[in-house]
Amino acid sequence: MSKSPQNSDTQLMEKLVSLCKRRGFVFQSSEIYGGLNGAWDYGPLGVELLRNIKDAWWKEMTNRSNIEGLDASILMHPRVWEASGHVENFTDPMVDCRQCKSRYRLDILFDEVSVKKQKDVLRELDPAKYQGQQQDARIEAEFGKLAESTPDSLLPLLSCPNCGNKGTFTAARTFNLMFKTFVGPVEDTTNVVFLRPETAQGIFVNFLNVQSSSRQKVPFGIAQIGKAFRNEINTKNFLFRTREFEQMEMQYFVKPGADDAAFEYWREQRMAWFLRFGMQKEKLQWHRHEPGKLAHYAKDAYDIEYAFPFGWGEIEGIHNRTDFDLSRHEEYSGKKLKYFDEETKEKFTPYIIETSAGASRSFMAFLVNAYAEEEAPTAEAGATETRVVMHFHPALAPVKAAVFPLVNRDGMPEIARKIEAELRPRMRSFYDESGAVGKRYRRQDEIGTPWCITVDSQTLVDQTVTVRDRDTMLQERVASDGLLSYLTAKLTY
Amino acid sequence: MSKSPQNSDTQLMEKLVSLCKRRGFVFQSSEIYGGLNGAWDYGPLGVELLRNIKDAWWKEMTNRSNIEGLDASILMHPRVWEASGHVENFTDPMVDCRQCKSRYRLDILFDEVSVKKQKDVLRELDPAKYQGQQQDARIEAEFGKLAESTPDSLLPLLSCPNCGNKGTFTAARTFNLMFKTFVGPVEDTTNVVFLRPETAQGIFVNFLNVQSSSRQKVPFGIAQIGKAFRNEINTKNFLFRTREFEQMEMQYFVKPGADDAAFEYWREQRMAWFLRFGMQKEKLQWHRHEPGKLAHYAKDAYDIEYAFPFGWGEIEGIHNRTDFDLSRHEEYSGKKLKYFDEETKEKFTPYIIETSAGASRSFMAFLVNAYAEEEAPTAEAGATETRVVMHFHPALAPVKAAVFPLVNRDGMPEIARKIEAELRPRMRSFYDESGAVGKRYRRQDEIGTPWCITVDSQTLVDQTVTVRDRDTMLQERVASDGLLSYLTAKLTY
Repeated sequence: MSKSPQNSDTQLMEKLVSLCKRRGFVFQSSEIYGGLNGAWDYGPLGVELLRNIKDAWWKEMTNRSNIEGLDASILMHPRVWEASGHVENFTDPMVDCRQCKSRYRLDILFDEVSVKKQKDVLRELDPAKYQGQQQDARIEAEFGKLAESTPDSLLPLLSCPNCGNKGTFTAARTFNLMFKTFVGPVEDTTNVVFLRPETAQGIFVNFLNVQSSSRQKVPFGIAQIGKAFRNEINTKNFLFRTREFEQMEMQYFVKPGADDAAFEYWREQRMAWFLRFGMQKEKLQWHRHEPGKLAHYAKDAYDIEYAFPFGWGEIEGIHNRTDFDLSRHEEYSGKKLKYFDEETKEKFTPYIIETSAGASRSFMAFLVNAYAEEEAPTAEAGATETRVVMHFHPALAPVKAAVFPLVNRDGMPEIARKIEAELRPRMRSFYDESGAVGKRYRRQDEIGTPWCITVDSQTLVDQTVTVRDRDTMLQERVASDGLLSYLTAKLTY
Repeated sequence: MSKSPQNSDTQLMEKLVSLCKRRGFVFQSSEIYGGLNGAWDYGPLGVELLRNIKDAWWKEMTNRSNIEGLDASILMHPRVWEASGHVENFTDPMVDCRQCKSRYRLDILFDEVSVKKQKDVLRELDPAKYQGQQQDARIEAEFGKLAESTPDSLLPLLSCPNCGNKGTFTAARTFNLMFKTFVGPVEDTTNVVFLRPETAQGIFVNFLNVQSSSRQKVPFGIAQIGKAFRNEINTKNFLFRTREFEQMEMQYFVKPGADDAAFEYWREQRMAWFLRFGMQKEKLQWHRHEPGKLAHYAKDAYDIEYAFPFGWGEIEGIHNRTDFDLSRHEEYSGKKLKYFDEETKEKFTPYIIETSAGASRSFMAFLVNAYAEEEAPTAEAGATETRVVMHFHPALAPVKAAVFPLVNRDGMPEIARKIEAELRPRMRSFYDESGAVGKRYRRQDEIGTPWCITVDSQTLVDQTVTVRDRDTMLQERVASDGLLSYLTAKLTY
């Protein structure tokens, strides 16, 4: 994550979290018990938004005749994580304060040291070198260099952010981020299994099962949506860094040599997907992993980052994973994972282009992206008020249509209820008769309902209703018996 | 699970498991590493069938205006499981063989003792009482009684099924079936969390969050689909008893006094749902929990059982859970979980009627239910062959339509590919040009594709295609530009 292009907007985050709870998008997990850090529950509207995002992704992938679906289990054989490198490498360094027992991820501890304190630390290490005035930028660079090369040299000079004591930190130790549990009743090392920290490995180990049962030829892909778990030392930023989250991953198997072109193709496809569903172009950017900092399996890697209120954050990674994964699983399992090309009679280990999106992170990005506060006219002539509106793409909006009777009499409620019941099996809809119509519009704006249908006195005369557009706030009269096809046409993308 | 109404058919199970692997319905988890017991992966066809079952259930529930959706996290606050009774009660008794270290669930160990051995055991305990000939039924009853009342008295007299040694069993101990793990880096009791053993508790603890954000009035329900985990000592019967599985649960909140009527209503609704999607009536039965054997929270409980090849097995439970859950969570959390009725100004703790279906078990039941071997005519006049066919309800079938060119020339492949590409965004479809058409039909029958569309020489003349029905095997000619609406109409339920 890099720094934000705009000023950090903690107020926006607070508003969003509050709206999410109030309107039923997201609740804190186990809230009545004080919550469970890093876990969130999707409420009635949230679950629909999340389902719509996942469905849009699933269709985008599996509507292609050379992409197959998969749903692998969360618990996998422990050797999988040795082969993948997670047992060895999926670690964070951390330190404890011996005084107050607080625990910190080392990089986060260093990140939070102010420049002023950094200067003190550097002077204590080398008084001669850091005399007098020094540029902040130089101090930060020097401190950063030491933090990377000799972190243990800095620890005795830092104070614990919690208790304030200095020099109380233990040496840094690595901590594996996989949750572990035991299969069967005996809790010993031979029975350890891990909750998968990513869904990708379920695809890799099934490569030949999928290929042979579906009769696919390389190049082809395997798509999967599912939960993954990481025992983060520090969770933060609402749905962004959590311990339980959902991924949408597609692994594309190609012949070595065809990997660079496939990589470019999928980069373009994935960015286009986010834009097609309404992401603001200027809120998305590419972040390329510097060649020296690539993961051990990667030949090239780009992240799609979204401009969250707390800064740019990754919502999807597109990686050229080479033949690392299949080769490693072949080595660790002793099973051949090669592809035989019937046409050329060649046998090879495919390269893998991965598109790995966070479903939970995409959910959060689509929420932030949709949120707006706008001046809108009130019932009073000439007056305006601020309306909160979620400009979701109609396909993603949790509720598609709300149906209101203008007043609670003259048979209008009955007609409105009937219309709502007819729409409901075809698109999520909602009936509301409570309060002034303006207020009902605002309630729907706040959850992003694209269309509000009102049954009024003219409906009683000519069977037409008004359809009010969420974004333009303009109304149109539509024959009530043509309403379903009118809305269905607007929903088709 | 009670005994089967038919002879146990292990051959059918073997055929199904093999078909599931070969055609890509279900693979063993981590198969290349020898598999992980009690975990399965859904392949390209399996994931579509599973999605279709879950979607059909989700629509059935949330198309009702008084049922809201939810997607709660798998990791929850540990106090949830104290309140629910799982920490205390969700246990199985088990024994170890001191000789060979094999481990058994006590009830399963007892179940597997033959009548002959039961007789030996009883004679050893009380030689006078069991002299001479005895009725098998009486022996079984006596043995069953001792197994229930004084299990420890039997253990020294039994032999280990694995090593054959007698009297090597440890005393029975209880074993909690919840998987546990640790949040954060310190593995001590204060950081234990459990993988949820059922999805229901995520609904209960969110009762007021959902109710207030959705403005629902009692009676209303909350529906949820999600994974749950149980550390079964013995897994068995393919997808039936696994360690990782998926549930589809709806909890319906009613005013006390209205619970019996709601219970009957939901019993009827749930049975009707399975029948609507093609379950054979004679393969389903009700199993009522005897009043003396009800779970600690239940006032009444019925299971819907399916006639699996290994016997009758529960696929859904409908339970009257009373106010147990909300009362317990109120007590353990110290937070009020009462409902205030605006109209009557009454405050009360709702009763809960639960409909708890296994998604994985339903998947398996729909598979078994669909499977048939039938005599079918071959291309040769008068001759027949056995075809394997999956009679899935069209809405559940993983692939809806397969499109074939009759021969690989005259432009037929191009037309067939075009038709397939047009259908694909609207319904899962498949293009196949390999082998004789009869063989292509069989391949689709085996995965339950309801319609096969063939482009033949007449297509070139009048733009019609044949649509062949999976069940009747009859063909109809349909104009190719009317094909989409023809099939869509058949798919609508």
